[in-house]
Amino acid sequence: MKADLPALLLSEASLRHSGSTKWLKFPGDVLPLWVADMDYAVAPAITAALHARLSDGLGYFQYHQPEPDVAALLRDKLSSQGVTDLPEGSIRTLPGVVPGLYASVLGLTSPGDDVISMTPIYPPFMSAIADHGRGLRAADLVHGPDGWQIDWAALEAAVTPATRLLMLCHPHNPTGRVWTRTELERLADFALKHDLYVVCDELHADLSFQGPHVAFVSVNPALRERTVTLTGPCKTYNTAGLGIGAAVSHSAALLDRMAKATAGVMGGPSVMSMTMWVAALSSGAEWLAAVMEQLAFNRDLLTERLRAELPWVRYTPPEATYLAFLDLRAHPHAHDIQAFLLSEAKVALNDGPTFGAGYEGFVRLNFATSPEILNEAIDRIVRACASVPV
Amino acid sequence: MKADLPALLLSEASLRHSGSTKWLKFPGDVLPLWVADMDYAVAPAITAALHARLSDGLGYFQYHQPEPDVAALLRDKLSSQGVTDLPEGSIRTLPGVVPGLYASVLGLTSPGDDVISMTPIYPPFMSAIADHGRGLRAADLVHGPDGWQIDWAALEAAVTPATRLLMLCHPHNPTGRVWTRTELERLADFALKHDLYVVCDELHADLSFQGPHVAFVSVNPALRERTVTLTGPCKTYNTAGLGIGAAVSHSAALLDRMAKATAGVMGGPSVMSMTMWVAALSSGAEWLAAVMEQLAFNRDLLTERLRAELPWVRYTPPEATYLAFLDLRAHPHAHDIQAFLLSEAKVALNDGPTFGAGYEGFVRLNFATSPEILNEAIDRIVRACASVPV
Repeated sequence: MKADLPALLLSEASLRHSGSTKWLKFPGDVLPLWVADMDYAVAPAITAALHARLSDGLGYFQYHQPEPDVAALLRDKLSSQGVTDLPEGSIRTLPGVVPGLYASVLGLTSPGDDVISMTPIYPPFMSAIADHGRGLRAADLVHGPDGWQIDWAALEAAVTPATRLLMLCHPHNPTGRVWTRTELERLADFALKHDLYVVCDELHADLSFQGPHVAFVSVNPALRERTVTLTGPCKTYNTAGLGIGAAVSHSAALLDRMAKATAGVMGGPSVMSMTMWVAALSSGAEWLAAVMEQLAFNRDLLTERLRAELPWVRYTPPEATYLAFLDLRAHPHAHDIQAFLLSEAKVALNDGPTFGAGYEGFVRLNFATSPEILNEAIDRIVRACASVPV
Repeated sequence: MKADLPALLLSEASLRHSGSTKWLKFPGDVLPLWVADMDYAVAPAITAALHARLSDGLGYFQYHQPEPDVAALLRDKLSSQGVTDLPEGSIRTLPGVVPGLYASVLGLTSPGDDVISMTPIYPPFMSAIADHGRGLRAADLVHGPDGWQIDWAALEAAVTPATRLLMLCHPHNPTGRVWTRTELERLADFALKHDLYVVCDELHADLSFQGPHVAFVSVNPALRERTVTLTGPCKTYNTAGLGIGAAVSHSAALLDRMAKATAGVMGGPSVMSMTMWVAALSSGAEWLAAVMEQLAFNRDLLTERLRAELPWVRYTPPEATYLAFLDLRAHPHAHDIQAFLLSEAKVALNDGPTFGAGYEGFVRLNFATSPEILNEAIDRIVRACASVPV
């Protein structure tokens, strides 16, 4: 343990009493390493700002309050990621990144159009496409000795005459890939060649072990007129219960189309979510540094133990996120591996098939917990897997 | 002043520093009696619950947490309003009542369909209809010696072959009418006769001076299969910045259609909004009683002074809400009366035309403030109107 974990970690009692979906969905003897929450207390600077905000009224508020303006803070952050020259009105709040995925599908495509995404992928990418009558064209990533890689031939093959939109996830959930500048440039060429709009979910940008994030839209000026970037504080700062996010684009036309297609439905952001975001951007850095140190420690712990004790598990350590996408297809219970580990190891993971067709035998493991809980979960998985021949 | 106002009232400094839209939209010398916030501090029980909730994590949470379940508490409240026999799943959270208005238009009608509403009306009723390509069929209320009344002939005349939905507001914003049981029964007959769905915004139900609220759907069992009731805590408990609400219906089919039409776009409710709603329903009664006492006092103060000092203003005291809809059409500046009062009286009110075509010369005045501020605003209006012949 590298970081100041006692201050960081919520007590198990607090986790279990907070209404936490992560901790309460499964029976009490199950260790929950599934949904993407961290078992860490919210940054003290954020909690202090939320307490302070309760001294004032909670009525209609100006979206550019509280000062400093969240848009100005976000503009600075995006600038450090290569997103420059954003005109006025180019940052529009959302109830979260998932509503942004849906709004982009609704606003930038029509029913019957096709949308490309690279699987495995965070499930709402697929439901955003399917729920409103668009067609998913899935290009599988390839998992080889160099980790998860883009299958460029599959991507080309996914294009149909009805394809209008490319939906990217960068860093990529669930594999943890951070696309390199070279990959981003090639994705840009692909989008331009096929005249596609691009929505790029960059929600995990701050959780990279690779150094400063390079925004997709920054790699080619021609992307500006066709790209919407989705961002938000809730994954980095562990505040999914205060959903908020933003759609960012140099193109007001794209943002206007998304707004028109969803007019009136989203509601305004909560004053507490706005307060949280302002505090996160202005005062969250120290806490985040401690979290990243802990996550790096946990990732390495997981990697070392899997290699030593479960060498048949195929796994590439993530370059970002606290999510590990594990290939357990060598296991006899590969066809129902999530259920097997839930019942036999008492460890709850996310099931591979929820990330796309063909991912039976995979699970997503969330290592944003204490080393003790992570070690115990690995112990249990090792024991459960020892009882069957691999 | 009847209630314990010093404890209830936010200081003007707090109001002006909270990012309040109401207080900050206009210059500092303007008294803001416009947007529907109250100048009262949030109920201590709610503030305490929000502070306490910050001790736990703010990640993904179970919507039925925190205990007691908001759905159970709301079910009890609705039952007291005549809404009984609600099946499981009949209460679905929304980001607010306005998103519910939009969702009902999107889910229960198709582009090109017509929707009836009674004007003057809260502006989002009209935008919900227009923004997604439906046609507004407006039936004007009549303002006579008996106050604001339904024009049944106008309502009949508003029906077209393409009319699918009747949108009601009960209590009615901006007139403050509480429809009587007899009126509700006749509205029910009207909806049944013309085979209309009904969405009934009952957001102001708790702010009635008439005694217990009678829900529209309660007056005729045949309404259950065609009615969606919209409700929420934000108007009663002065928490518009923590937007949340619910769509309630005996018909899962109607709720499913609303959910499908808006799938993925709304985002989940904020944990702070849920905490607020639970605290409001379980512990907000004492604060609300004090607020209602103050609002009744202010309403009577406004009524007496208008009758004595501005007898040419036509006005019927509201039966609910803290909103007074004033007819100043006798004034020479009737055509721009809101702008006139803003510049000459330094009082900000809502402009009549935003509540429907034909309401030039009307303004909506929000009297949920201190008697001192209300008296000062009336003084200013009286002085401004004295300088021109009426």
